[in-house]
Amino acid sequence: MFMKTLLFTTAVCFICGSLAVQTPYEPKWESLDARPCPSWYTDAKFGIFIHWGVYSVPAWGPKGKYAEWYWSSMQNKSAETWAFHKEMYGEDFQYPNFAADFKAELFEPQQWAELFNRSGAKYVVLTSKHHEGYCLWPSTHSFGWNSVDLGSGRDLLGELTEAVRSRGIKMGYYYSLYEWFNPLYKNDLSKYVENHMLPQLTELVEKYQPALIFADGEWNHHSSDWKSESFLAWLFNKSSVKDEVVVNDRWGKDCRSRHGGYYTTEYGKVDVHGTELTQEKPWEECRGIGSSFGYNRNESLEDYQSSQELIHMLIKLVSSGGNFLLNVGPTADGRIPVIMQQRLIDIGKWLEVNGEAIYSSAPAKGLKSNNSIRFTQKENYLYAICLEWPGKQLKLDSIVCPKDTEIKLLGTETALPWQEAGNGIVVDLSSLGPNNLPCEYAYTFKIKLSK
Amino acid sequence: MFMKTLLFTTAVCFICGSLAVQTPYEPKWESLDARPCPSWYTDAKFGIFIHWGVYSVPAWGPKGKYAEWYWSSMQNKSAETWAFHKEMYGEDFQYPNFAADFKAELFEPQQWAELFNRSGAKYVVLTSKHHEGYCLWPSTHSFGWNSVDLGSGRDLLGELTEAVRSRGIKMGYYYSLYEWFNPLYKNDLSKYVENHMLPQLTELVEKYQPALIFADGEWNHHSSDWKSESFLAWLFNKSSVKDEVVVNDRWGKDCRSRHGGYYTTEYGKVDVHGTELTQEKPWEECRGIGSSFGYNRNESLEDYQSSQELIHMLIKLVSSGGNFLLNVGPTADGRIPVIMQQRLIDIGKWLEVNGEAIYSSAPAKGLKSNNSIRFTQKENYLYAICLEWPGKQLKLDSIVCPKDTEIKLLGTETALPWQEAGNGIVVDLSSLGPNNLPCEYAYTFKIKLSK
Amino acid sequence: MFMKTLLFTTAVCFICGSLAVQTPYEPKWESLDARPCPSWYTDAKFGIFIHWGVYSVPAWGPKGKYAEWYWSSMQNKSAETWAFHKEMYGEDFQYPNFAADFKAELFEPQQWAELFNRSGAKYVVLTSKHHEGYCLWPSTHSFGWNSVDLGSGRDLLGELTEAVRSRGIKMGYYYSLYEWFNPLYKNDLSKYVENHMLPQLTELVEKYQPALIFADGEWNHHSSDWKSESFLAWLFNKSSVKDEVVVNDRWGKDCRSRHGGYYTTEYGKVDVHGTELTQEKPWEECRGIGSSFGYNRNESLEDYQSSQELIHMLIKLVSSGGNFLLNVGPTADGRIPVIMQQRLIDIGKWLEVNGEAIYSSAPAKGLKSNNSIRFTQKENYLYAICLEWPGKQLKLDSIVCPKDTEIKLLGTETALPWQEAGNGIVVDLSSLGPNNLPCEYAYTFKIKLSK
Amino acid sequence: MFMKTLLFTTAVCFICGSLAVQTPYEPKWESLDARPCPSWYTDAKFGIFIHWGVYSVPAWGPKGKYAEWYWSSMQNKSAETWAFHKEMYGEDFQYPNFAADFKAELFEPQQWAELFNRSGAKYVVLTSKHHEGYCLWPSTHSFGWNSVDLGSGRDLLGELTEAVRSRGIKMGYYYSLYEWFNPLYKNDLSKYVENHMLPQLTELVEKYQPALIFADGEWNHHSSDWKSESFLAWLFNKSSVKDEVVVNDRWGKDCRSRHGGYYTTEYGKVDVHGTELTQEKPWEECRGIGSSFGYNRNESLEDYQSSQELIHMLIKLVSSGGNFLLNVGPTADGRIPVIMQQRLIDIGKWLEVNGEAIYSSAPAKGLKSNNSIRFTQKENYLYAICLEWPGKQLKLDSIVCPKDTEIKLLGTETALPWQEAGNGIVVDLSSLGPNNLPCEYAYTFKIKLSK
Repeated sequence: MFMKTLLFTTAVCFICGSLAVQTPYEPKWESLDARPCPSWYTDAKFGIFIHWGVYSVPAWGPKGKYAEWYWSSMQNKSAETWAFHKEMYGEDFQYPNFAADFKAELFEPQQWAELFNRSGAKYVVLTSKHHEGYCLWPSTHSFGWNSVDLGSGRDLLGELTEAVRSRGIKMGYYYSLYEWFNPLYKNDLSKYVENHMLPQLTELVEKYQPALIFADGEWNHHSSDWKSESFLAWLFNKSSVKDEVVVNDRWGKDCRSRHGGYYTTEYGKVDVHGTELTQEKPWEECRGIGSSFGYNRNESLEDYQSSQELIHMLIKLVSSGGNFLLNVGPTADGRIPVIMQQRLIDIGKWLEVNGEAIYSSAPAKGLKSNNSIRFTQKENYLYAICLEWPGKQLKLDSIVCPKDTEIKLLGTETALPWQEAGNGIVVDLSSLGPNNLPCEYAYTFKIKLSK
Repeated sequence: MFMKTLLFTTAVCFICGSLAVQTPYEPKWESLDARPCPSWYTDAKFGIFIHWGVYSVPAWGPKGKYAEWYWSSMQNKSAETWAFHKEMYGEDFQYPNFAADFKAELFEPQQWAELFNRSGAKYVVLTSKHHEGYCLWPSTHSFGWNSVDLGSGRDLLGELTEAVRSRGIKMGYYYSLYEWFNPLYKNDLSKYVENHMLPQLTELVEKYQPALIFADGEWNHHSSDWKSESFLAWLFNKSSVKDEVVVNDRWGKDCRSRHGGYYTTEYGKVDVHGTELTQEKPWEECRGIGSSFGYNRNESLEDYQSSQELIHMLIKLVSSGGNFLLNVGPTADGRIPVIMQQRLIDIGKWLEVNGEAIYSSAPAKGLKSNNSIRFTQKENYLYAICLEWPGKQLKLDSIVCPKDTEIKLLGTETALPWQEAGNGIVVDLSSLGPNNLPCEYAYTFKIKLSK
Repeated sequence: MFMKTLLFTTAVCFICGSLAVQTPYEPKWESLDARPCPSWYTDAKFGIFIHWGVYSVPAWGPKGKYAEWYWSSMQNKSAETWAFHKEMYGEDFQYPNFAADFKAELFEPQQWAELFNRSGAKYVVLTSKHHEGYCLWPSTHSFGWNSVDLGSGRDLLGELTEAVRSRGIKMGYYYSLYEWFNPLYKNDLSKYVENHMLPQLTELVEKYQPALIFADGEWNHHSSDWKSESFLAWLFNKSSVKDEVVVNDRWGKDCRSRHGGYYTTEYGKVDVHGTELTQEKPWEECRGIGSSFGYNRNESLEDYQSSQELIHMLIKLVSSGGNFLLNVGPTADGRIPVIMQQRLIDIGKWLEVNGEAIYSSAPAKGLKSNNSIRFTQKENYLYAICLEWPGKQLKLDSIVCPKDTEIKLLGTETALPWQEAGNGIVVDLSSLGPNNLPCEYAYTFKIKLSK
Repeated sequence: MFMKTLLFTTAVCFICGSLAVQTPYEPKWESLDARPCPSWYTDAKFGIFIHWGVYSVPAWGPKGKYAEWYWSSMQNKSAETWAFHKEMYGEDFQYPNFAADFKAELFEPQQWAELFNRSGAKYVVLTSKHHEGYCLWPSTHSFGWNSVDLGSGRDLLGELTEAVRSRGIKMGYYYSLYEWFNPLYKNDLSKYVENHMLPQLTELVEKYQPALIFADGEWNHHSSDWKSESFLAWLFNKSSVKDEVVVNDRWGKDCRSRHGGYYTTEYGKVDVHGTELTQEKPWEECRGIGSSFGYNRNESLEDYQSSQELIHMLIKLVSSGGNFLLNVGPTADGRIPVIMQQRLIDIGKWLEVNGEAIYSSAPAKGLKSNNSIRFTQKENYLYAICLEWPGKQLKLDSIVCPKDTEIKLLGTETALPWQEAGNGIVVDLSSLGPNNLPCEYAYTFKIKLSK
């Protein structure tokens, strides 16, 4: 889809899906924004977001709030968090002291990677550094405040990266531009950016070759203060990941849904500027399984989305042209809570049957999705994805099929009887019942379209 | 069912289901074994077992093993556990030191009780004291080694008991007769029993009035060494719970499946002595959702039974005349892992629709259950519970119904067409499809029987 | 001195100083009180008291108070301690949780024993169990609440006992009869005494053979409630230490300075019942170097007695017929604070020169001690111990010496010129100056007396 | 003494002892070295060094080694330290995790300052940052690795500075140029110096106005790499402490005993370059009371210098023209070990009597000190300090006094009889004995000299 807008000076590698760009980019949004999104990303559709850091130790937030904001809430003496902190740890307990307990002693990167693989995700985005400033790799620029120095003693980012890549999954990093309480940031933005942030981000790129950078924490300053254009020009022209790398749109308070790479929404909220998202750029919705990104011990079952809800979310996003970056919040000892494993595996099982309708697909042109049926398209196949079982018949309006098309339910082998009806078709489902469905949650009918 | 065997000297209270026993029991198995099981228990069918103790702090065992045996494995230098212990805590770290971290700081007994209520369980059995000897209440006989003195500072047992009872759920306690490393037990069994164990068990009964006592850790000694007969005679004749209390069969190495109250199986294993279990006594299967009773951080999704497997287990047990005591393993901070909440809620949802076929039911006489269909009976109704959807028809052999019987799927209102066929009946299910089933996992057809 | 009161039925072993008693004692104070004190004790004069327990972890008390009473102060919400506890550990932190940090990881019993040896002490008294109930040995009767189960994992008492004895120093134990918060003690004194206390105390005696038992915590109950007479009769008649063992006078609220073995004072305070202490029984003053027995981090230099003050105290006590049991409070990690080492070594250096005037001595009859000079006696030698340097002459009244007596300053070889003067003598000290004194703090002149 | 070498362009303030310098310094050693040492420093003679940091948590080193080098020893797997670390904390325990336990919860800066005041010290030098890189103040350039962020949550340096200054004592800081494990230092010295070290050192100066900077950790690089000359030129010309500040000589591997401010020796070891120290520059010996600067739990009494040894050391250093910077190692909870308090108070008591011979004094010209007698001079008074009591007479050679001079023992009021003898004098001490000496350890005779 997005490939249609590619400049003639670029070419997509048919093997890895990365771009072979001939023209250097200028450090100006005009030029940078013209860079096409590498196709691996728009094909991938489903990724895993991971929020893991010192906040995973207290692992607590008020219901409905982000647990990874614990430090900020604590410093601001936000009512519930401050009450919790005082009672549990005492007023004098400084947040960074939690880091000693971020031991990740049960962390098995191969197990995580295998889980992600089974979930059907095609990329992973790990918080390399959240607003707290603590790095999950031994950053030259955060001495004493990273996972090798303080806590587990391990390069958590490096270990996970290797395991994820060994399964052919793309690895990306979330990176917070600002650091809440770093006095250098607070006292001298320009020095912070030049001596700390840019060297650190560059180090991250060169040392670990991310396929994706999810910037964040940008909202207080203009992209020119963050020197984002220069960084991206370097990234796109010179870095070792220049062809493969994908970036998002959080590079300054002037950027969201305007500049950078793909556009981001978060828990369904998005800054829109008078245009339809899908017309301009790839975009991605991110959210947790519950209401927090960082693991929140305060959440119970009722705070978690069910597997069905998540699968429906994925279908709705993809059929609207977006990607779904679903977050998991590991524990401080290095485990992904079993309930989250359950959700990922359920999604993976569904994708095993229905992935053909998701990966590398595009929204179907001219067909109106609704709450019970969504459409995607790939080459000249249409995929009608029913969010609930349609009953004994499936009626589809505004569809024209070749006479000889075989309509099948994905996951089954038998062609279903169908006939034209009005301006569409009717498919007979009477042979399918509770005992012979190939999956749960949603059902995809594959239909060949007339050209 | 068991009520048929009641002695004429007893009577069941029609309100609370407890026994009104007129005759005192003698401290001899012959007499004790004749005590009928209070009917609340045989009606209840589904209970929640809770293993919570100092072992919930390391919360680790080899896959497939019981995490609550950590201390024992550690002392025996059992390969995997000892390797884990050395690496994580160091060779010199004594197990009881874990108790300081058993803080239960997020423990909300009302939330637990509400969850149990929503699961459809009718009784709860908490480890008052496991083999480690640590008590969840401030026992007079375990000074310094109980939850009020060491760890949370709270009477965990007392708090949970109150919350559970406030929802009309029966509260019982697991109690380990032996204590692995108590030197008094090891050096002088007789003093241990007289000065420690019996005073403690008596205190537990009198202070908290359990509706059920699940003894354990009895296997090394004869019931006469444990003085079990005397204790039970006191319990049944004099204690404040004499009418209501139910006990199990673990009161000495001579007892399992022979003496005491109901018989116990554990993970499907049971000592059978040439008789059919169901002919003699009520019985109960207990097991965890995974392979451990105590919370085991080493278990992943694949180690947990699915909601479907658990619901099928419940159906099979109840249709065979047993109770199901399903265990949850809370964390040291006082939470029930969300995956376990998911399982309990799924069971509860199923019971909301199908409970009529479970509670107070009995196995159906003369009907052969198999892996896809199980039968229970209550008054003159038969419940055919299909573990998988039967397709367009349900065929039942060896069934005779009144002509005017209405056969319905529990959870729906419409009577299903049926007709006699051979020595049974055939029910037409063609009106039911994936879109109008009242529940998942298993489907109950209620059928009035001819007398 | 005390030997004069020995019954004719006993005899002192000339080798070990222990008693060879022929007559069994009856469990009555009348009989028990008649037992003579083994002479090793009255010869020893100087002992080391050690208060070490869970209280050594918080190691804090208000200035001038006993830090080992932390738990009691905390529970009573005593102002300063409760404020400290709340701020440092939080309201919910239970005292027994400190035990996990009582690791004694640097404890080297040989080093302690060597230090005691160099201090000149002849016996050591360790808190086997203080009022908190926590035992420093793996007591059969305090499962889970002793140093092997909880904390260090070591038999601290056993290890120290062995090291102390290997240097020929006597080993004794302090033992608290009551346990503040043991519910068995609070609910049922009689069961506590019979099932817990007496078995435990007996175990301690038989397993470790103490040369001394310093009972305490007796004040709330009569000795008949504690069954002290029976215990002591057993101890004196049957136990393996019957000949050697020495006990104190804290066996019931009716006992101090009345019954038992030697009488005790504490920080100079003593219960006196109309009699002169020295006329009846051996006695012993105990106190800390500062104002606490348990280590108190809240004490600074000004709270510690100087070496001079302690040496003067020792001299005053011994010249009045008493023993001095000087306490040290080790840290939770197993060290004796260096300032305490300094004090002990200073005492030891002084005793190396002046021990002849201390060990096995008796108060000098008929000579009046005052604040600057004290007298002891052994055989027909008088020891005049000057607490400050007398100047160029030493005048002693009421002394009659043989003409040929050689008067020397202990630690020097030269006889000092002297002559009779009035009813005494005058010794010429002009040859002694700051540059040729053999020790600091106090100076002993040895004088042969006329018979 | 050193004042004689002052350039005519400077003048000493008669009130505060600071310099009023008119000429700007150039960033060249030639110019910087010519700056005279502010007289407050050469008058002060006795200062307190404090090593306090994350190393105070393990607080352990092999006997005779520096405990503050724990991290380095651990990383190098130095035999004893690594064995200790593995046993106590486990192989995986990273050093920075100790910081969470650096709580300083009992730290009372006023108490410390009062102790230093009573010790007679005139300046204090605190480790603002040791080689570990952890700062005792909230440095803008060590986010997450300083005492406000991690550990106590307090500005330990700021609090102590205020308390020390309120008693009229000068406050200085030790500062390590290098940081062992800071990757920026290891990867890019130039960036480290420009972006980290110099901004941090400058911040320290401007925020806390030190009277003294004790640089260290300089040995791997030339002063030009450290940009020391530029820094010192700024410090001496522009900083807010330009007149008062004193610096040492550790500014590059080319500097010790050659460049900078005063010269430093450490445990008596000094780099000498063919010249006599006292001829060029003020100098200072630093050492601990034991063999470590950071608190070492592994040290016992025998590892500590006695008060006498320390007082003799002070006398020898001052009489040789040096200062004595005596180190104390506080504990992680914020206390100065009582044994160290004892040493400081003993020195203070001695200085109370003898300070006249120490403060603002100079070595006596033409008199030969030896092991039992040392000489200092002030105006036209000579101070003969006897390290042991001379006996009945004090003989001094090569001394010429006015006939009417009154020779007194400092601390007493009576003039002592004396007479000429040979080329010197003999003083009669027969009136002084053990009972009327004004102090211990060393005795000062004050003698007016003929001009």
